Amino acid sequence: MSIQTDPYTSRGTEPQIIERQDPVVYTDSRESGFLSANQLQFYEDNGYLFFPDFFSPQETLELQEQQQRLWREGIGQEGPEYVREPESDMIRSIFAVHHNDPFFSALLQDPRLVSLARQILGSEVYIHQSRINFKAGFRGKDFYWHSDFETWHAEDGMPRMRAFSISIALTENNPFNGPLMVMPGSHRYFISCIGATPKNHYQKSLRAQQYGIADDNSLTYLARQCGIEMPTGTAGSLLAFDCNIMHGSNSNISPYPRSNVFAVYNSIDNRLGPPFAASEPRPWYLASR
Amino acid sequence: MSIQTDPYTSRGTEPQIIERQDPVVYTDSRESGFLSANQLQFYEDNGYLFFPDFFSPQETLELQEQQQRLWREGIGQEGPEYVREPESDMIRSIFAVHHNDPFFSALLQDPRLVSLARQILGSEVYIHQSRINFKAGFRGKDFYWHSDFETWHAEDGMPRMRAFSISIALTENNPFNGPLMVMPGSHRYFISCIGATPKNHYQKSLRAQQYGIADDNSLTYLARQCGIEMPTGTAGSLLAFDCNIMHGSNSNISPYPRSNVFAVYNSIDNRLGPPFAASEPRPWYLASR
Repeated sequence: MSIQTDPYTSRGTEPQIIERQDPVVYTDSRESGFLSANQLQFYEDNGYLFFPDFFSPQETLELQEQQQRLWREGIGQEGPEYVREPESDMIRSIFAVHHNDPFFSALLQDPRLVSLARQILGSEVYIHQSRINFKAGFRGKDFYWHSDFETWHAEDGMPRMRAFSISIALTENNPFNGPLMVMPGSHRYFISCIGATPKNHYQKSLRAQQYGIADDNSLTYLARQCGIEMPTGTAGSLLAFDCNIMHGSNSNISPYPRSNVFAVYNSIDNRLGPPFAASEPRPWYLASR
Repeated sequence: MSIQTDPYTSRGTEPQIIERQDPVVYTDSRESGFLSANQLQFYEDNGYLFFPDFFSPQETLELQEQQQRLWREGIGQEGPEYVREPESDMIRSIFAVHHNDPFFSALLQDPRLVSLARQILGSEVYIHQSRINFKAGFRGKDFYWHSDFETWHAEDGMPRMRAFSISIALTENNPFNGPLMVMPGSHRYFISCIGATPKNHYQKSLRAQQYGIADDNSLTYLARQCGIEMPTGTAGSLLAFDCNIMHGSNSNISPYPRSNVFAVYNSIDNRLGPPFAASEPRPWYLASR
């Protein structure tokens, strides 16, 4: 007889707010590593950390050039790693760059990033997912509130909250171009979402998510508890955020595009199993196994 | 033989950027009136003015209560003044409140507002259009860049740029809930838009505009010249902006709704004639004659 021990059930018939059952920072020795004790404390309390000048101007320039190279190489490519805009053939995201591209593979093994990841997750780490996003100006769509962990747990079988994401800005993020918004502290609440996951849902969800999104009441509650922050800055800035923080972005009618490198570090002690709320796991380029 | 003297042709086959042919501030005696000489100068240079605390907290509370009353009264109303959300029956705007509602009619004749209007337009004034907007949280859509004058000229027959709008905030405007964005100084350029106006276009354009919108190149040019500003503040603030300033707003996925009273003051020396680029003028509740 199997006993239900999953504390983070989702995709049921009733929305529910569940308290986080896992640590946010896993390391015990907070004194050594890339982050100061204060930074770790901020991350633990708020679920995110913003570094305005993580990369030097020269490093940033190279990142931008490499992004442009990838986009040029992507013209006409048909692989599933290439996700296009809902209403045009423009590439919106390229997935699995840590696997497919030597430059970005090396970038994501940068000693600063690996130290950051080990310090937060308290173990060796690996990359669960990576992608580069390019959100054009004028007609960039919004991306609704969600917790990444909700999807990774339900659809990818990630057991616990022991992962986090980084977003490296390749363009300026400002209040006009639909930057990422986070609810600080919302990583302490798991919003159980309603609706069973349809088969191959991921093929649509990358363009516009319809399942695994939080209900209005839970979002209102979280926004009242946590407020909303919008970490903005120049290209070369880095945002690190917990796998369960509630985040999203408004549309972008400004002429300013938005581009970033996104990667997820997961603890090797948190490897994926079978999905918790989907009939089949998502493919390798969305979730490394 | 009639001679084409319209300096602001639009809805043709080629986009065009035309320099403004009209004053921004029409009054000669800048010393007397609601606005200081500095404020008038700011308005002339930038095409807008923001007043963080135009209405007192008590006045603001009454405005909010009156808005709620109008929304209650609007349930089930079928008049064309009631515009609903594209995907639901929720009221998004109620038009012609200066005409239909004694409270808002009086509000828009507030001596401070009339003094402001006379000072900018240099003549007696009347209300060209009024409405109250309510943009719900979570699913508020974006409103693409446009010049109001482009529409009022092409579809309503407003001869010259001698009108301006006010927006009274009934809720807080913050960077998260899709506030109005303006391009300061863009009121000095008329962007001639492409595409002939379809008949009864207004019935759709109030929900999502498809004609009279500026092209990407012109918007990029304007944004480089002018930048973008986002005047935000608490309920009770007032934004006054020139009829030709380029403005728009991103979507609103935040839980915070956005509501405002919007009215257009036009000079009595700038009364409407036949539309410049449409087969029929729009109805009275969109454009007083």
